[in-house]
Amino acid sequence: MSTRLIRKEVDEALVAFVDRQRPALLGISDELAPMLATLDGLLAGGKRLRPAFCYWAWHGAGGGARPELVTAAASLELLQASALIHDDVMDASDTRRGQPSVHRRFEAMHREQGRPGAAAQFGEGAAILLGDLCLAWSGEMFESSGLEPDRLARGRAVYDLMRTEVMAGQYLDMLEGTRDTGTVDTALRVVEYKSAKYTIERPLHLGAALAGAPLEVTGALSAYGLPLGVAFQLRDDVLGVFGDPAETGKPAGDDLREGKRTVLVALTLERADAAQAAMMRTYLGDPGLDEAGVTALRTIIEETGGLAACEAMIDRYAAESGAALEGAPLTEEARGALGELMIAATARRV
Amino acid sequence: MSTRLIRKEVDEALVAFVDRQRPALLGISDELAPMLATLDGLLAGGKRLRPAFCYWAWHGAGGGARPELVTAAASLELLQASALIHDDVMDASDTRRGQPSVHRRFEAMHREQGRPGAAAQFGEGAAILLGDLCLAWSGEMFESSGLEPDRLARGRAVYDLMRTEVMAGQYLDMLEGTRDTGTVDTALRVVEYKSAKYTIERPLHLGAALAGAPLEVTGALSAYGLPLGVAFQLRDDVLGVFGDPAETGKPAGDDLREGKRTVLVALTLERADAAQAAMMRTYLGDPGLDEAGVTALRTIIEETGGLAACEAMIDRYAAESGAALEGAPLTEEARGALGELMIAATARRV
Repeated sequence: MSTRLIRKEVDEALVAFVDRQRPALLGISDELAPMLATLDGLLAGGKRLRPAFCYWAWHGAGGGARPELVTAAASLELLQASALIHDDVMDASDTRRGQPSVHRRFEAMHREQGRPGAAAQFGEGAAILLGDLCLAWSGEMFESSGLEPDRLARGRAVYDLMRTEVMAGQYLDMLEGTRDTGTVDTALRVVEYKSAKYTIERPLHLGAALAGAPLEVTGALSAYGLPLGVAFQLRDDVLGVFGDPAETGKPAGDDLREGKRTVLVALTLERADAAQAAMMRTYLGDPGLDEAGVTALRTIIEETGGLAACEAMIDRYAAESGAALEGAPLTEEARGALGELMIAATARRV
Repeated sequence: MSTRLIRKEVDEALVAFVDRQRPALLGISDELAPMLATLDGLLAGGKRLRPAFCYWAWHGAGGGARPELVTAAASLELLQASALIHDDVMDASDTRRGQPSVHRRFEAMHREQGRPGAAAQFGEGAAILLGDLCLAWSGEMFESSGLEPDRLARGRAVYDLMRTEVMAGQYLDMLEGTRDTGTVDTALRVVEYKSAKYTIERPLHLGAALAGAPLEVTGALSAYGLPLGVAFQLRDDVLGVFGDPAETGKPAGDDLREGKRTVLVALTLERADAAQAAMMRTYLGDPGLDEAGVTALRTIIEETGGLAACEAMIDRYAAESGAALEGAPLTEEARGALGELMIAATARRV
């Protein structure tokens, strides 16, 4: 599996890029060192899913072994770092990948150094800026990957679309959290843009576009990637409620405390009786929700059949993805790798 | 003057770009309409200084009349929109360009629609995302301007540097606000990166790079642009304390309420006696500072000679910039336009 994620190659490309930026930033002021240290820490984590999908689509479309492609693909991790940093500010999340979130880190730095002014506001400001820097750098890393201009021009169109879609998806996600009337359909629309396209379909399209793949390849990648993206997000939703904190990097039940209006929650509310629905609505999004409260909500999600319905959806979408992959006009090796990535992205881990 | 700012051409390029994005965004969901409406409102304002500097450097270096250059230059307004939106979130500012700031707009929308959840958090989240979108779109607008790949490659190097510098400058600015020991020197370093390079030198370099100007032109533009950028920011600092709200678009004394550690403040603290310094330190950054308090701080800034020292610095930097412009190897017309822009950027308006 790990070879499919091309983790080592992606890590090296990211380190090389950030190391190239380091002297420029520290040349402005050595007070920027905490920005770099925080970024180093954040970039050390992550499953490298997006670069892997980009990489295998490129290979599947006949692209050869080229380090420039790995660099272009790895730039997706900087885009993702930006999204995570800003997401955590928006959700007021305390942790990310098992560590304090970026705004909490800078808040702690402010306190430890006994600076005057509001530590929390300083932390948020620093996180907004580091997220901006990651967003700018993702584009810079992509453009400076060394791929030929005509390849980059084709890839850029996908990159542009992907960024617009993920930001739109994030806004719709936030809007979904301010609705009492969320349904499975509205939750699925968020999943489509915030996750399915952003995490899987567009990285695949990016690799295909860079390789110069014909439209039929792009279409086949969508047929594999979109349902897989939905299945991946639904698995993530289940892990957000039932997952092992050691694996998710978040305290147990954090998604419940944040009040995320996931498909899992919508499936549960559809099936809940009045008492169960009232309890869900009362405790979902309560930042002070304790372990007993988390357990109570988990019980409702299981007893209503919401969890089983979600697992059935995951199986259905994964099967659809798998069927599309079988007939996809890709190299044998890429089909094998994408099949393994599918299992990694959707496997039950609870 | 207004012709020098090429406002009409920049407006048209911005409207054309956003109109091209509009159907894509609304195609995802019509619930994204408030994002577009807010962006339209924000982009309608602004002095268009950065595009004008880019445009005249291009012309000064012999670039001809090309709409593609205006588009590339206008993309700087989207970068600036991103910086303003995020800046207002970080500073918790209520107003921008005489209107409610973006996060306050979305906060109000949340309240008016009676949505559940925290309105302020929703507003901040929406503003972070709209700022991200503007940052992504600035790069997209630049890359899709239609200029030749070799021109874009030269310009991209400047664009990349500029984005890193402005984000670094913003962080240093924030850090400066958490220091009791700020000096004229540390305040000037913030001005250099956050304003002088970002607002003037790099837009000039961008135009020159796109035109393919030789190094001596770039150097001459720095000699004109860097001191002008400092003078511009110092003028902005004076306006932030003494300016007419109708012109600044911010309530009188807002910079004092936000506690900005400007060069003007540092010059005042250097000259203040113990009682004046104590009063400055007590009231600077007090969000509840009333009109009497603003007047008291203004009096200290005048009576210490801080204001006069700042005006003298503006004159000195503007003179340095003007002298550099006289000998600059640029076309006659561009030298004339850049001279007018210098006056517009630093003129006393209080």
